Amino acid sequence: MTQKPSLYTSLSPALLHLYDVNNSIVVIIDVLRATSTIATALFNGARSVIPVDSVSRCIEIGKQIDGITAGERDGQIAEGLEYGNSPFEYPREFIAGKTLVLTTTNGTRLLHMALEKGSRQIITGSFPNLGAVCDYLASAGQPVILGCAAWKDRVNMEDTLFAGAVINAIGNHFDINCDSSHFAASLYARAKNDLFGFMKKNKASHYHRLMGFGLEKDIRYCLTPGGANILPVYEEGKLLVK
Amino acid sequence: MTQKPSLYTSLSPALLHLYDVNNSIVVIIDVLRATSTIATALFNGARSVIPVDSVSRCIEIGKQIDGITAGERDGQIAEGLEYGNSPFEYPREFIAGKTLVLTTTNGTRLLHMALEKGSRQIITGSFPNLGAVCDYLASAGQPVILGCAAWKDRVNMEDTLFAGAVINAIGNHFDINCDSSHFAASLYARAKNDLFGFMKKNKASHYHRLMGFGLEKDIRYCLTPGGANILPVYEEGKLLVK
Repeated sequence: MTQKPSLYTSLSPALLHLYDVNNSIVVIIDVLRATSTIATALFNGARSVIPVDSVSRCIEIGKQIDGITAGERDGQIAEGLEYGNSPFEYPREFIAGKTLVLTTTNGTRLLHMALEKGSRQIITGSFPNLGAVCDYLASAGQPVILGCAAWKDRVNMEDTLFAGAVINAIGNHFDINCDSSHFAASLYARAKNDLFGFMKKNKASHYHRLMGFGLEKDIRYCLTPGGANILPVYEEGKLLVK
Repeated sequence: MTQKPSLYTSLSPALLHLYDVNNSIVVIIDVLRATSTIATALFNGARSVIPVDSVSRCIEIGKQIDGITAGERDGQIAEGLEYGNSPFEYPREFIAGKTLVLTTTNGTRLLHMALEKGSRQIITGSFPNLGAVCDYLASAGQPVILGCAAWKDRVNMEDTLFAGAVINAIGNHFDINCDSSHFAASLYARAKNDLFGFMKKNKASHYHRLMGFGLEKDIRYCLTPGGANILPVYEEGKLLVK
C-alpha cells in the first residue's frame, strides 16, 4: 500500500508553527472575503493579484505597476485606495487584463508566514474555487496544510468550514492524524446543507460583522461553491491562475 | 438589562494570550486524563492535588511533603514515581487524606500560563465534574475563559467537546462573541449522545493513543459526566475542593 500524504488543518496563524510547513502545500483560507475575492478577480481575467499587508504598500505598488488598488478597513474602502474587498467589484468587464493590488490583514499575514517558513507551494482557497482546490490537492500527492487566516489569530467559523469542505471532498486521499481536521469536517457535515443559515444560527462573529455593513449578498456568494472555479498559485509575489 | 459576563474558549495554550486572562476565571481542561484524575482524587478525599511540570519536581515535592507522586510518560508510570495518570488508581480507600503530587505536561503548563497572566481564579474541569463546574460558573457572574490544554499546543477533540458541554449547559448566562465557543458547542451537540463513539468515529488522536495503551475503561470514565462532581480550585500551588 502506498503511503498517503499527510493533511493538517491550522485553525489560526498562531498555530501554523506546529506543522511542517516547509514540506507542504499551504492553502491560505480567508473566506470572508479575501480569498473569495482573489479567486473571483482571477476567474474574471485579472492578470494577477498582488496581496500586500498595508495600505501604504498597496498605494506604492499600485503606482509602480499601474494596478488597481483595493482594500478595506472597518468595512470602508481604505483612504487612498480605489476599490473594496467585495468580489462583486471585480466583474470581467472591469478586471480582465488588469492587476489587482489587494491589501488584506489576516490572509496576507498568513501567506507571508507560510512564505517565510519555506512552504513547498502556496495556493488560496475559498468556496467559489473549492472544486479547483480539491482537484489540485487530490492529484498533487503532496502533504497539505489547510491554513485558516482566522481573525486577528482568533479561530473563525467560515475558514474552519472551508477546511471541513475540503476534507469532506478529498480527505480519503490523505492520512489525517489531526483533530482540528476531524472536527472541521464534522462541523462542515453539520452545516453543509445551509452554510449561511449555520453561520447565522451559530452566531459566527464575522457573519454579524459583515451583515452590519449590509453585505448579505457578499456572504452568500462567499459561502457558495463554484462561482470562480480556478486555482490561484503564489509565484514571486503574485497570485496567478495556473 | 444587566450585561452578561463574557465567555471565551481558548482551543490551545498557544491561543490563550488572545483573551483577557487577567480579568477572568480560567477553567483548565485536560480531559484525557489530567483534570479527570484531579477531580476524582479530590472527590475521593485527597487533601489536595499539587500539579507540577516535571518528574524531578514531582519527586522533590513528594519527598518534602510525604505526598503520593504520580505521572506518566508515553503511557508508563514515569521512572522514579509511584503511580500513573489513571483516575482508577485513586479510590477513596487509597487517596483519602493524602496529597497527590501529579506531573502532567499539557494541563500543568496551561495552568502555569494562566497563573503568570494573573487570572482572577483558576479551576479545573472535566466530564466527571462537569456539573460542579457549570453550577459554579453560572453563579459566579464573572468573565470566563474555557482553556483547553490540547496536546503540545495542537487542538484536540476531547477538550473542545468539554468546552462545548459547558456552553451547552450554561451558555445562556454569558455573552458569547467567540466562534471557537460556538463551534465547540456545535461539535458537542453532534457528539453528546455518544461521546465515546464520536471520538472513535472521528479518529480523535488521543482516543487512539490511549486505546493503544489498553485504556478504554479510562476513556469511557473520562467522557462520562458526574463521576466526581466537585470543584477543584487552585490556591497557592494546590488544587483543593472549595
